Formats: sequence, C-alpha cells, structure tokens
Amino acid sequence: MSQMHYFMSLAISEASKAANTCEVPIGAVVVKDGKVISKAHNMREGSNQVAAHAEMLAIEQACNLLKSWRLENCDIYVTMEPCPMCAGAILQARIRNVYFGCYDKKAGAFGTIADLSTLAFNHNTRVYGGILEDECRNLIRSFFEMLRKQSENKA
Amino acid sequence: MSQMHYFMSLAISEASKAANTCEVPIGAVVVKDGKVISKAHNMREGSNQVAAHAEMLAIEQACNLLKSWRLENCDIYVTMEPCPMCAGAILQARIRNVYFGCYDKKAGAFGTIADLSTLAFNHNTRVYGGILEDECRNLIRSFFEMLRKQSENKA
Repeated sequence: MSQMHYFMSLAISEASKAANTCEVPIGAVVVKDGKVISKAHNMREGSNQVAAHAEMLAIEQACNLLKSWRLENCDIYVTMEPCPMCAGAILQARIRNVYFGCYDKKAGAFGTIADLSTLAFNHNTRVYGGILEDECRNLIRSFFEMLRKQSENKA
Repeated sequence: MSQMHYFMSLAISEASKAANTCEVPIGAVVVKDGKVISKAHNMREGSNQVAAHAEMLAIEQACNLLKSWRLENCDIYVTMEPCPMCAGAILQARIRNVYFGCYDKKAGAFGTIADLSTLAFNHNTRVYGGILEDECRNLIRSFFEMLRKQSENKA
C-alpha cells in the first residue's frame, strides 16, 4: 500500500467513528514529515458547531500541536472533497498538499462547484482528488441508506 | 444612524479591541431579531488558530447560544470582506445577510477575488459591501502604519 493510500485509510477509519455517533462519516488526518499529527471526524450535529467538519477539527488540533496557525509542510487527507469553508481554511493554513477521497457534487470547493486552489489567493495548495474514492463514497452512501431504513421503520 | 450603520459601528468597536492586542483589527457581530447575539474580533496570532477570524468566532458563539449550527434568520456584520473560509462558514450556517465594511484585495471571497455567494451551493446569502467602508479601512491602515513605525524604531 502506498503512503498516500495508507494515510487515506486512516482518514477512512476516522470517518467510520463519525458514523457510529450518527454524524455524516467524513474523516481527516494531517501529516507532517511522514507522521500523522492530528486526526478528526465530522462532529457537526453533536457539537452544534458549523465549523465542526473533520478538516477544521484536524487543522485545529494541528495548530495547537505546532503552536502556529501556519501549517507549512503539512498535508491533509480527507475522505470527501472539502467544502468552501474547509478549502478556505486549508489555503489560509498554507497546507502543502490536499488528498481527498470522493467528490462532493453539492459543495465541493476543490474542483466540483468551485476550485479555490486556482484562485489568486495569497497561498495555494496542490490538490489530488479521487484517492480510495469508492471506499470513501460507499461509507457515506451506506450511512444515508441506514438513515433511510431507520426512518422507514419509524414511519 | 440607520440600524445597518449602528451594527457595523459595533463591529468596528470589536475590531478596535483586536488592535489593542496586536491582532489585525477586524470585528464581527451576529444579529438576530434586531439584537446582537454574539460579537468577536480577530484573534489569530494570539490563539495560533487559523480559524480564529472574527467571523468564525462570532459564528461559534452564536451556534453555542442557539444550540444549532444553522443560524437561520441571522445576519452578520463584519468590518472587512470575508475570506473564503469565513464566507464558506457563513454560507454553511445559512446566515441570511452579510454586511461588510472594506473590500479585501488579497482574499475577499464575496466579490473581490471570488464571489462564493453566486455559486451553486446548497444555500446562499445576500451580501452588502462597503458599509462604513472608510472607517473600517482606516482602522486596518492605521494598524499597519503603527506596526511599520514600531519596526522602524527597532531597526
């Protein structure tokens, strides 16, 4: 397994934790010098925080650890294409490379609805999409199928 | 003074607090039903958090108060045009109206470098720029002039 696939598989493990707490299963890890320095999963519903996406939480932890809001020479692996908020935070934090799993038709901001990586912002990042895409998409698909079945059983 | 200018003047007061702690002076307030429900200023340097922009902190407080990540029927007043991260959070939070002061040539994501409000995202918001623009810009200009003088005195 390549290093890229290995780190994405860790992000997928994180995403699975989200599903266990009824959150949309999206996970992220931040890597520096070949080591994971933070990992997080989506916690938006439970926390009532709009910024509790996996990427934002992983970035927050990494900033705490490095005592800096500049995450230079860091890479992020996330199971779904970041939304504009998360893509913006990634750019602001000067993250070097973004690897994401499945594309997000509704809010993807690194290629789908917009591509913030190509705009004339102060800093830019390299983006690689479609890493372990099927696994990442299936996790989300299974989650919503489960929710639908639960709501049908209740109806 | 119109209600819009009144709320922007409160955001300017918040911005001044940032300057007092050597942070770029940007302030924000969230308003619901004609009342300020949260206010914050930029704290990025002191907190070492990339997400410690005024808008993000004001949104975080508002989410805590309303116990929801959906800030429906809320408006935000911010002294400078939001960056992509903050603009994305505003869209995600379903904020109704955004009023900002000065435009941001480097990172403005509601019209200058990009306009996230016009993209085909799930939710959209109405954006009004240039509210008390001179006051908002002068606050930032004075801050950077002060920093330059301090660094010249040290040189």
